Amino acid sequence: MTYLHIVEAVLTSQLKPYQKKPNFIKIPKGTRDLSPKQMVVREKILDMVISCFKRHGGKGLDTPAFELKEMLTEKYNEQSGLMYDLEDQGGELLSLRYDLTVPFARYLAMNKLKKMKRYQVGKVWRRESPSIVQGRYREFYQCDFDIAGQFDPMIPDAECLRIIYEILSGLQLGDFLIKVNDRRIIDGIFAVCGVPESKFRTICASMDKLDKISWKDVRHEMVAEKGLAPEVADRIGDYVQHHGGVSLVEHMLQDPRLSQNKQALEGLGSLKLLSEYLTLFAIMEKISFDLSLVRGLDYYTGVIYEAVLLQTPAQAGEDPLNVGSVAAGGRYDELVAIFDPNGHRVPCVGLSIGIERIFHIVEQRMKTSGKKVRTTETQVFVATPQRNFLRERLKLIAELWDAGIKAEMLYKNNPKLLPQLQYCEKRGIPLVVIIGEEEQKEGVIKLRSVATREEEAIKREHLVTEIQKRLSQS
Amino acid sequence: MTYLHIVEAVLTSQLKPYQKKPNFIKIPKGTRDLSPKQMVVREKILDMVISCFKRHGGKGLDTPAFELKEMLTEKYNEQSGLMYDLEDQGGELLSLRYDLTVPFARYLAMNKLKKMKRYQVGKVWRRESPSIVQGRYREFYQCDFDIAGQFDPMIPDAECLRIIYEILSGLQLGDFLIKVNDRRIIDGIFAVCGVPESKFRTICASMDKLDKISWKDVRHEMVAEKGLAPEVADRIGDYVQHHGGVSLVEHMLQDPRLSQNKQALEGLGSLKLLSEYLTLFAIMEKISFDLSLVRGLDYYTGVIYEAVLLQTPAQAGEDPLNVGSVAAGGRYDELVAIFDPNGHRVPCVGLSIGIERIFHIVEQRMKTSGKKVRTTETQVFVATPQRNFLRERLKLIAELWDAGIKAEMLYKNNPKLLPQLQYCEKRGIPLVVIIGEEEQKEGVIKLRSVATREEEAIKREHLVTEIQKRLSQS
Repeated sequence: MTYLHIVEAVLTSQLKPYQKKPNFIKIPKGTRDLSPKQMVVREKILDMVISCFKRHGGKGLDTPAFELKEMLTEKYNEQSGLMYDLEDQGGELLSLRYDLTVPFARYLAMNKLKKMKRYQVGKVWRRESPSIVQGRYREFYQCDFDIAGQFDPMIPDAECLRIIYEILSGLQLGDFLIKVNDRRIIDGIFAVCGVPESKFRTICASMDKLDKISWKDVRHEMVAEKGLAPEVADRIGDYVQHHGGVSLVEHMLQDPRLSQNKQALEGLGSLKLLSEYLTLFAIMEKISFDLSLVRGLDYYTGVIYEAVLLQTPAQAGEDPLNVGSVAAGGRYDELVAIFDPNGHRVPCVGLSIGIERIFHIVEQRMKTSGKKVRTTETQVFVATPQRNFLRERLKLIAELWDAGIKAEMLYKNNPKLLPQLQYCEKRGIPLVVIIGEEEQKEGVIKLRSVATREEEAIKREHLVTEIQKRLSQS
Repeated sequence: MTYLHIVEAVLTSQLKPYQKKPNFIKIPKGTRDLSPKQMVVREKILDMVISCFKRHGGKGLDTPAFELKEMLTEKYNEQSGLMYDLEDQGGELLSLRYDLTVPFARYLAMNKLKKMKRYQVGKVWRRESPSIVQGRYREFYQCDFDIAGQFDPMIPDAECLRIIYEILSGLQLGDFLIKVNDRRIIDGIFAVCGVPESKFRTICASMDKLDKISWKDVRHEMVAEKGLAPEVADRIGDYVQHHGGVSLVEHMLQDPRLSQNKQALEGLGSLKLLSEYLTLFAIMEKISFDLSLVRGLDYYTGVIYEAVLLQTPAQAGEDPLNVGSVAAGGRYDELVAIFDPNGHRVPCVGLSIGIERIFHIVEQRMKTSGKKVRTTETQVFVATPQRNFLRERLKLIAELWDAGIKAEMLYKNNPKLLPQLQYCEKRGIPLVVIIGEEEQKEGVIKLRSVATREEEAIKREHLVTEIQKRLSQS
C-alpha cells in the first residue's frame, strides 16, 4: 500500500456515505469566482483608481478581514444583521468587516493618529438577502480614499469630489453627475417642516428611495405608513425636489424659514464655499446640489455626495440594469471619537468607488464590443517543428526568462508545429521563435510574427536583442 | 435636536453600561494592521512576484474568502481544527479558506477545466494556537502559481522550480537552496525499511521535524513515542540523512533494496529527469535532493520541494529568527478528482511563495539599513509664502492633477511657508512650486528643488512641461 493509497483510504473514511455525496460542486450563496478574463478587467480598473489615489498623496493601509464584533457593532448602531459572524472558537466574538470606513476609524483611534490621507482596497462582506436585493454579491471589493484631520473648511471635501471626478472621467464610463447635499441641510429642512424628532430617521429612510420611486409614492409612504401629517410631507416635498448649481444654494439662503435654522445655514454656507473650490478645480459642471440626497443614516455629519452615471438611450439598451450610484461618500466627524477611549475627535471626509458596478459595466461593454481579452501577457512562444528538440527549447526559453521576456512553450517532448502555432493565435501571443535542425546547424533561430506570419532568421546570439527591439516597437 | 444628536442618542443607547466599556481598542488575536510603510514593502515585493508569474504565462484567478465547509473539509482529511468557521446564518456552513490550492482544485472541477496555468494572490486564515506557534499570524497572504493538466513528465515541475529560483534571486534575499524530494521515494524508503503501513503517517510527521531537531531526537520520538522497532528507525536514518545533487539519485538507484521498490524507482527516475531539465534551466546549482524532506502529509503525490534561505553568520546576527522555508510546493495529481463528481483526474503541480516571511526579512533589513521609506509618491507640493493665495493654489494643483502629476498642498487657507517646506522634506517630496504676489504679477511660478534648495522662476504656461522634464530626469 503506497502513500497515495493511504491518503485515499483516509479520504474515503472521511466521505459521507456514497448516496449522500452531492454530485455538484458549489460556492457560497452570493459569492463568485473571478475568471482570468474578469481579473484582467479588474486589474486595469484598480490600477487606474489606485494611481489616482496616489496622485492625491494617499498612503496605503490594510486591516484584517475580521474585527472584534464589538468594534463593528456594539459601539454604534450599524446594521449588524448584515454581518457575517465567525463561530466563537477561542473566546473572541468576530465578524467580517462590512466596509472599510469603520476599520479606518478604528485604526486612527487605536494608533492615536490625528491626521492621515489613506486609501484602501479590499473585500468586504455583507449578508444581504438575495430575495430583497437582486444582483448584489455578498462578497465584493471596496476602494476607499479618506482624509482624516482638522483642516480649514471644505478643502479636503473638495479634493474628494475632484478624485471622484478624475476616476469617473478617466474610466470613460460615459457622462456622469455628482449629487451633493449636506446632512445639516436635511436636519434643517425636517426641523422647519415640522417633522417630529422621533420620526427623523424613518422619514430619512423614505427619502432615500427618491432615486427609485416618485415623490408621490415617497409621500404616500411618509403619510400612510409612517404617520406624518400630510402638510408636513408636502412642505418636505417642496424642498427636496430642488436640485441645481450654486444658484440653488443662493435661493435656499433666501428661504425665509430655512435661513432661520442654524443647521441649515451652516450646511448651505458649506455648499457655497465648496462650489467656489469646485469651480477652481474645474469640475463644477458635473456637480448637482440635490436636496433629496440623504445617503442612509449611518455616520455622516456634513457634506454628502453620490455620483451617478447618466445613460443615453442607446447605452441603456446595451445594459438594461439601472447602474445607479458608482461613487459616494461624505464627511463623518464623529466616528473616530466613538472608538477613542477618551472620545478625542478626528474629523474625516472620504469617498468609496462603487467598483463592482464599474467592473460590471466595463465587462458588459467588452462583451458587446466583441473585443478579445488576453488573459496572459506572454510575448514570445518557443516552438519547434521537429522531434527531440525539447532540450533546445528549454535552454532557449530560460534565456528569454533571464532577459525578463514573458515566454511560454508546450509541456510536451515532441509537439507538432501546427498546435504550437494555433496556441499562439488563440492566445494572441505576438512572436514565435522556432528552432529545428536546420536552424541549429546554421546557428540561427527563426523569429515569426504571428499576425503577419512573416519569418526571419536571426543569429542565435542576437535573438534576445532582436526580440526586445520588436517588443518595444509594438 | 439635530441629526447628529439623534445619531449620538442612538449610539449611546447601544453602548454597554459605562463601567463595562473597555478603555482600549483591539484587533483579533493573530491579526494585524499593515501600516503605510509595510504596504510599500508589500507592494514592491508582490509586484516582483506577480511579474514573474506573468512572465511564465500565468493567468489571474480570484476565489471567495470563504467556501462551503464541506468543500474544505468533508471530502478529504484537512486539519479542520485550524479553520475559521462562520456562524450558520442562512443554512450554509461556511469556513474561511486556509490555502489557495484547495479553492483552485475546486474551481477546476467545478468548471470542468482540464488545464490551466494560474496564479493567485490573496489572504488565507488559520486559527493556529499562538501558544504553540510563535510569531505566526492567523491572517496572512499567499502567492501561488500552479500548472494543471496532463503533460509530459517533469516539464511543468521543472518550470515551478525555475519560478522559485527567479523570485528568490530577484528579491536578493541572499543565498538559498531548494530541497527536492519525491513522495514516492519516501513511500519506498518506508516500505523497504519495514515501517508498518499503519504507522506511515505518524512516522512521516516525525520526519517532518528533521529541519528543527536532530536525527537522534527524531529517532527517539519514532521509537519511544511511536513504537517503531529500533532497527527500522535506524534503517530509515541511513536513508534520510542523505542529500546532494544528481549523484545522490544515481547512488540510490544502485541501492539493492530501494531499487527493488516500484514506487521508489518511479520517484528516483523522476528526479533524474528533473535534474536534466534543471541543468538546462541553469539552476541545478541551487538544488539539493534531500531524502529527509516530507512536507506534511496532505495532498502531494510526487515531487515535492521547499526553498530555504542560507544565512551567513553576519546575517544571522541581523535577524536571530530562523527564517526557514520561503517557498514550497509539489505535485498533487489526485486533488481535483476528489472534487469532481465523476472523479476525473487533473494532474497538478504548483508552488507557494512564503511571502509573509519574505516581507518580514525585507522589513527587518530596511530597519537595519536605516533607509527612509516614502509612504506616498507625491512628486510636487504646491506652496505659497503669502496670505490669501488658496484660490491660486487650488487652480494650480488642479492643473498638475490634470497632467497626471502627483501633487499635494496643505489644507489650510493661510499656511506659513516653513511648515510647507518642512512637510516636503519630511516626506521626501522632490519638487515645490511656489506662488506669491510677485510671481503672480510676473506670470511666473517658482520651482524649488527640495534637495538642493535651488529655486528657478518658470513661466506659468511652461510649468507642467518643466516639471515633467525634471521628473523624467530624476
